[in-house]
Amino acid sequence: MDLTSIRNPQFLKKMSKEELIQLSGDIRQFLINELSVTGGHIGPNLGVVELTIALHKVFNSPKDKFLWDVGHQSYVHKILTGRACEFATLRQYKGLCGFPKRTESEHDVWETGHSSTSLSAAMGMATARDLKKSKEYIIPIIGDGALTGGMALEALNHIGHEQKDMIVILNDNEMSIAPNVGALHSILGRLRTAGKYHWVKDELETLLKKVPAVGGKLAFTAERVKDGLKYMFVTGMFFEDLGFTYLGPVDGHNFDDLFENLHYAKKTKGPVLVHVITKKGKGYLPAESDKIGTWHGTGPYKIESGDFIKPESAPIGWSKLVSDTVLKLAREDERIVAITPAMPVGSKLEKFQQEFPDRMYDVGIAEQHAATMAAGLATQNMKPFLAIYSTFLQRAYDQVVHDICRQNLNVFIGIDRAGLVGADGETHQGVFDIAFLRHIPNMVLMMPKDENEGQHMVYTALQYNDGPIAMRYARGNGLGVPLDKELRQLPIGKWEVLKEGDDAVILTFGTTIPMAIEAAACLEKQGISVEVVNARFIKPLDEEMLHAIFASERPVLTIEEAVLQGGFGSAVLEFAADHRYYQTIIDRMGIPDRFIEHGSVSKLLEEIELTTTDVVKRIEQLVQSKQRGLEVR
Amino acid sequence: MDLTSIRNPQFLKKMSKEELIQLSGDIRQFLINELSVTGGHIGPNLGVVELTIALHKVFNSPKDKFLWDVGHQSYVHKILTGRACEFATLRQYKGLCGFPKRTESEHDVWETGHSSTSLSAAMGMATARDLKKSKEYIIPIIGDGALTGGMALEALNHIGHEQKDMIVILNDNEMSIAPNVGALHSILGRLRTAGKYHWVKDELETLLKKVPAVGGKLAFTAERVKDGLKYMFVTGMFFEDLGFTYLGPVDGHNFDDLFENLHYAKKTKGPVLVHVITKKGKGYLPAESDKIGTWHGTGPYKIESGDFIKPESAPIGWSKLVSDTVLKLAREDERIVAITPAMPVGSKLEKFQQEFPDRMYDVGIAEQHAATMAAGLATQNMKPFLAIYSTFLQRAYDQVVHDICRQNLNVFIGIDRAGLVGADGETHQGVFDIAFLRHIPNMVLMMPKDENEGQHMVYTALQYNDGPIAMRYARGNGLGVPLDKELRQLPIGKWEVLKEGDDAVILTFGTTIPMAIEAAACLEKQGISVEVVNARFIKPLDEEMLHAIFASERPVLTIEEAVLQGGFGSAVLEFAADHRYYQTIIDRMGIPDRFIEHGSVSKLLEEIELTTTDVVKRIEQLVQSKQRGLEVR
Repeated sequence: MDLTSIRNPQFLKKMSKEELIQLSGDIRQFLINELSVTGGHIGPNLGVVELTIALHKVFNSPKDKFLWDVGHQSYVHKILTGRACEFATLRQYKGLCGFPKRTESEHDVWETGHSSTSLSAAMGMATARDLKKSKEYIIPIIGDGALTGGMALEALNHIGHEQKDMIVILNDNEMSIAPNVGALHSILGRLRTAGKYHWVKDELETLLKKVPAVGGKLAFTAERVKDGLKYMFVTGMFFEDLGFTYLGPVDGHNFDDLFENLHYAKKTKGPVLVHVITKKGKGYLPAESDKIGTWHGTGPYKIESGDFIKPESAPIGWSKLVSDTVLKLAREDERIVAITPAMPVGSKLEKFQQEFPDRMYDVGIAEQHAATMAAGLATQNMKPFLAIYSTFLQRAYDQVVHDICRQNLNVFIGIDRAGLVGADGETHQGVFDIAFLRHIPNMVLMMPKDENEGQHMVYTALQYNDGPIAMRYARGNGLGVPLDKELRQLPIGKWEVLKEGDDAVILTFGTTIPMAIEAAACLEKQGISVEVVNARFIKPLDEEMLHAIFASERPVLTIEEAVLQGGFGSAVLEFAADHRYYQTIIDRMGIPDRFIEHGSVSKLLEEIELTTTDVVKRIEQLVQSKQRGLEVR
Repeated sequence: MDLTSIRNPQFLKKMSKEELIQLSGDIRQFLINELSVTGGHIGPNLGVVELTIALHKVFNSPKDKFLWDVGHQSYVHKILTGRACEFATLRQYKGLCGFPKRTESEHDVWETGHSSTSLSAAMGMATARDLKKSKEYIIPIIGDGALTGGMALEALNHIGHEQKDMIVILNDNEMSIAPNVGALHSILGRLRTAGKYHWVKDELETLLKKVPAVGGKLAFTAERVKDGLKYMFVTGMFFEDLGFTYLGPVDGHNFDDLFENLHYAKKTKGPVLVHVITKKGKGYLPAESDKIGTWHGTGPYKIESGDFIKPESAPIGWSKLVSDTVLKLAREDERIVAITPAMPVGSKLEKFQQEFPDRMYDVGIAEQHAATMAAGLATQNMKPFLAIYSTFLQRAYDQVVHDICRQNLNVFIGIDRAGLVGADGETHQGVFDIAFLRHIPNMVLMMPKDENEGQHMVYTALQYNDGPIAMRYARGNGLGVPLDKELRQLPIGKWEVLKEGDDAVILTFGTTIPMAIEAAACLEKQGISVEVVNARFIKPLDEEMLHAIFASERPVLTIEEAVLQGGFGSAVLEFAADHRYYQTIIDRMGIPDRFIEHGSVSKLLEEIELTTTDVVKRIEQLVQSKQRGLEVR
């Protein structure tokens, strides 16, 4: 059928199973075609085609509420709720969001991006429903990867105890982005192969009522015998123990199986967990046969071959540069170990894992545990490298404060995807890290100007023995500069003048250095001489250099691809105020006080006025202010 | 025995059971006596006397490593490792810390304060041990309350999967601070009453090997039958499912039982969970009979009667003021609900709970879940009040960013214990909240000057419909001002001039207002006229007033009981820079860039130079700077 003609999911109600199977095929073809052009989360969505159709057929959205955990698997839901026609704009500036978005549709009742939030939100919604004496179904759909996130486990514990009516769909594809790990994963593995027994539950209850207590040497109670028998007949005792009715395993690509279990779930009181087995990438061979996660989210690709369409020869990617350098150093220092919360591929730690399987720990989606495990390693004189995306480090804020920084432990945090990330949008922009790390005592925070400085910084971090040290680096690739053979240590807190200049000073670091250099070149032509400083240490600041700059009375512009509130520019303002440089002109450029949606990074930088042109303008204004003799406004 | 003569735990090795029982009595008496004077965590420590003695007898600290989760139960450990003589200084300035402290003793290998970190740290230590091919035991001691924290569950999942040798002591007293909640608590409840079966495990394994598959209608495999039988004989299948060997329940006040199980645990490969049942407050009747948590941590008390020694008539406590006001408003608005992560007593929500049991949710130690559950409630047009201590809100940073603020939901966060908290020390100081909340888009953040303004602020927060709003308030009591009968809304982002003045302006809020007023009075006598502004909205700032202040060219001093980096003072600096008030003199007072240890708040304020005298000095300097015509340094 023509998917763009869909306005809402009502049309599903009258469809036969055969028609639904046909529809599944159409949706798969649509996704494969559309995403081959735009890129997107192809693997997760191909896996939930039948599941999403079944959910929309059995339940009534938006009255009944679907909460898509993480949310990158919501494309099919978007198609069935009338958004197929917008897929050409997927994840592009002002286009369709790659995650559920409440402003896009009344069917998107909960926004996601980070994992493991859906159960807590569902608990809130179910509680509100019961207070209002309303009747709708609340249905969080959570992956087996997201289930290991601590907050999901906190929610399971609470929901099971409160016995709230709720239908949790556990979408088990044995992967989050990489293959899943953890004891819970093993439990699910046993369940997957265990066969189904829930249909005998009622009979079992009757039977169990008749069981007497047993005596003898191994004396045990009737209660215990019942539990044991129940364990034999009922799968999913782990979840039953937590207070959930377990249904499954369900074949997530079989409509009969899905309908039977979803209808059974609807009739069941209290919280239900429906364990649905799906295949990531189902129906598209290159994605279906992916074992490590390369087809989780992709750029454009050639449909026939499954080849990714990539720029001919990009410079080395940041994650690879950092992880390869860590690996190189790990060969010489056996104290170096690496930790990733479920991102071995994204963080490019596969090579490390192959070479040192005992020294690389993928802990699953568990950022808090990852950070504190790193702290534990550091107490034993190890040198942990904690590779973590900026946006996900938010979830380990307390662990960074309380365990790593407060104990002043030698943990090297590699803050990947720092700054704007583009297509993943507001939930994934790595723009808060400076503001949430800079105020923590003992923290050293740095960002390199290019990949050569990057490798020296990694070396510096792993040589550093005075406490925590973090290095932020961008999503994407370096600049293509040559790499020195010999690694060297950078002096902590020392900046570097990249270009001298008399009329004004730009302080910046990382990704915004090229625009500063370019702007300085433009301004030079206008007769304005601008100094450009590589302020590679965001904390501590280069106090000596700052004293010299402020003493010279040149106006200062700070530039950062991060939020302005409490950011690097504020650190410079604080320094000036603390040292009573009251007459100094300081201007700050960075990310304003609002969430930044998806779009290409260049488009977003334009929108927030963080481009070379803007830098030129701001410097012109500053120099004018200075010439006007510090006029007020 | 004379406990102050203890140097290290070696003396225990030769002691008989009778001597240990005698020692337990001595330690209890010592704790009851000492804490009656200093105050402290009496309940938790009385509960772990035998357990701690048994651990130090069976293991060899510091080679074997004890990790005290939360850590307030480490007093007995401190006594046994030679610190009894310092108990008179407990939790006092420069005195013995109320939590494990690595600088205090080689026996304190991991510092705590926040809950649920010990398992992750133990995983790090065990990993380091195995890489070094060393042999020591790693023994985290975690309460049943702390176990529900998400990061502990993340760690269980990882440890169970990796099968690391580790002995987890689950100290189950059915309480964290308040009685525990959650499905896990119910599971433990069943285990407590189930009796012990671990000693038959070996026999069982032999037996199970002989079980054949069973056919028929309810066909199941041999594996399944085995699992079922195992479930009947082996307690703690929940933990066994997670990969742990479960031992217990163990009577935590019976040495024979403790020794037997600890020795068994030592011999067992892989992770072991020893389920120890203890009684909080054991051996001191007032504490032992406490059902709600008043004897968890106390001030001084009379030993005979168990009466707390309190100042005669203190003004209303902040937590009580806020929670009572919320309750009052909840009577008129049924959308108002309250959430606490395990602090119903500390947050003074008992009355709310009694009156509206359906509208108050104690979710256990689970700050992340609490925050996102609040967000879920808010999506359904409820008005959640999330009561949470400043220091524990750190653990929900990502949920505040990603779920509450990004979706701009109407959640009222009551940030209790904001500012310095005193005796609990560095892990508990509520000094980061401004810096970690101010940069989040959509957030409104405020702090009242006294309890009357406080009640109006609560009203304002619950009337506010434009997104998240947070109010910070101090540990302790209000000022004793009368409370208006009628509640009124404060205009968002509007400050209040408390005292006019021509020579300088102090911008401050909350607890530091009295010192500003007092300093202004002192300065008045010297002929310096200082304006004092109640900057009750930390975000958004009162832009109109700031424009007027900066236009007047008076020097400005900001004062906050919070970290200076990225704090309120920085917000004022940012405002001045953004609006090009380049000639303005702004000076900031607040908490410096280091962790602040325990001690009375007044002592700590002296140490960090945040007193009336310091304010007077700073204003004098500012006025001089101004008179010198903005001289640089």
